Amino acid sequence: MTAPPKQPFRWPVRVYYEDTDAAGIVYYANYLKYLERARTEWLAAMGFALAELELQHAAVFVVHRVEIDYRRPARLGDALTITVAPVEVGRSRVVVLQDVHQEETVLTNARVTLAYVARDTWLPTRMPAPLLSCLENAA
Amino acid sequence: MTAPPKQPFRWPVRVYYEDTDAAGIVYYANYLKYLERARTEWLAAMGFALAELELQHAAVFVVHRVEIDYRRPARLGDALTITVAPVEVGRSRVVVLQDVHQEETVLTNARVTLAYVARDTWLPTRMPAPLLSCLENAA
Amino acid sequence: MTAPPKQPFRWPVRVYYEDTDAAGIVYYANYLKYLERARTEWLAAMGFALAELELQHAAVFVVHRVEIDYRRPARLGDALTITVAPVEVGRSRVVVLQDVHQEETVLTNARVTLAYVARDTWLPTRMPAPLLSCLENAA
Amino acid sequence: MTAPPKQPFRWPVRVYYEDTDAAGIVYYANYLKYLERARTEWLAAMGFALAELELQHAAVFVVHRVEIDYRRPARLGDALTITVAPVEVGRSRVVVLQDVHQEETVLTNARVTLAYVARDTWLPTRMPAPLLSCLENAA
Repeated sequence: MTAPPKQPFRWPVRVYYEDTDAAGIVYYANYLKYLERARTEWLAAMGFALAELELQHAAVFVVHRVEIDYRRPARLGDALTITVAPVEVGRSRVVVLQDVHQEETVLTNARVTLAYVARDTWLPTRMPAPLLSCLENAA
Repeated sequence: MTAPPKQPFRWPVRVYYEDTDAAGIVYYANYLKYLERARTEWLAAMGFALAELELQHAAVFVVHRVEIDYRRPARLGDALTITVAPVEVGRSRVVVLQDVHQEETVLTNARVTLAYVARDTWLPTRMPAPLLSCLENAA
Repeated sequence: MTAPPKQPFRWPVRVYYEDTDAAGIVYYANYLKYLERARTEWLAAMGFALAELELQHAAVFVVHRVEIDYRRPARLGDALTITVAPVEVGRSRVVVLQDVHQEETVLTNARVTLAYVARDTWLPTRMPAPLLSCLENAA
Repeated sequence: MTAPPKQPFRWPVRVYYEDTDAAGIVYYANYLKYLERARTEWLAAMGFALAELELQHAAVFVVHRVEIDYRRPARLGDALTITVAPVEVGRSRVVVLQDVHQEETVLTNARVTLAYVARDTWLPTRMPAPLLSCLENAA
């Protein structure tokens, strides 16, 4: 008997003029903003606000690598859903898969590698145990 | 006998896709980025790099007020010139006029009020004497 | 007997890393993005999606003037509320007051003048009657 | 006898407050803006302005895929150099390598896949012969 597959976290995003460009579509860099909003809300939903991690632990998540495929464009007014699903969790490193959906259509797939680093040295540091535990359970 | 009118500082900016929106023009918030690039380069040209002011004096310029009139749109590929002309200089406060030109045409006029504040208290603080002196001479 | 004062439209915004800058606060241009998100949702709540106005009427709202006072900074993780209250409504022009609140504190006040323009000529054009009527009722 | 290795195109970028975030470094999405500025200037230097391609050929370059490694952070005031080197050129597709340098240090490496698409159908279309020829020579 296996556990049912875990559902990825989902976060809704509306496309505004700020997100689009003169080609009439969402500008490619702006998807990375959407991805981060969803990751921030995913961590917050587990009880870990980024602003507090920074204040209490003097540590921040930084992005080490992004692979992103832009399959179909999003446009002004679109209602998108951004997903977050952790696929690898280490003591100071998380890899997440993140998709951008418009209803049933996948517009974009991304794989994002995050490192948890100390703000003064900018070197990887071990995540607080409750955070690590939450991420391991989510993966 | 009066001194000849001072020439405002000028800074060139190219319009890229990142600056535009789905209406085909530069997105209104992005002009404020252009204005700040020009102010940063104007201060740097006088010998005051913002990153060093922050490191050495633990102080930053923050914007207290912007009045901006959008007269004509800028578009993808346009070569713009951003001007900076100080019109009021106080010990912890500067007001500058900033225009956005495309060749001879003025696209945008702005009046920006800046305060020089301490980074820890976020309260106005007196500018270093050499900076104040430079600004007074420029006004 | 007078009508009770109308409540301004309210729209919530969360501050993410994308909105902040190295001074640790929300970057001044990014408030204009918040203001536009709120205006877009305000129009959508009255039944007027900007993307449809552009498709059906070949017209867009453009910003003609912004006056904005930055009173207190917003920071990473803040939960803000953006308001929209129309104060002048003409056939091709609307002026709105927009505040940014954090709980009971007003961080920013803005007055934004919008023009409704034809996309081909970029000249002011009369708003569709239902839109104009809605705006007049809201003012 | 072989030709000397081709030098990649280089484009300078200054880091302003707009580019940074509350962690004190350049926000990860903003590197994609730098990459696009460099690609735009690279094409312009070969005689192909994006705005003209869109007007004359009703075609645009869109990004299909980005792989980007963030090795070291850039900070406020840094003077960066962005490179562009084409590594694969097809009739409607180009792959470029793009690095972000600060003096001799590589901060970021990216591999970007671009498609040349018709603006109405959003389907890949053959590049104009002079553009294709220039890209093939540069690769």
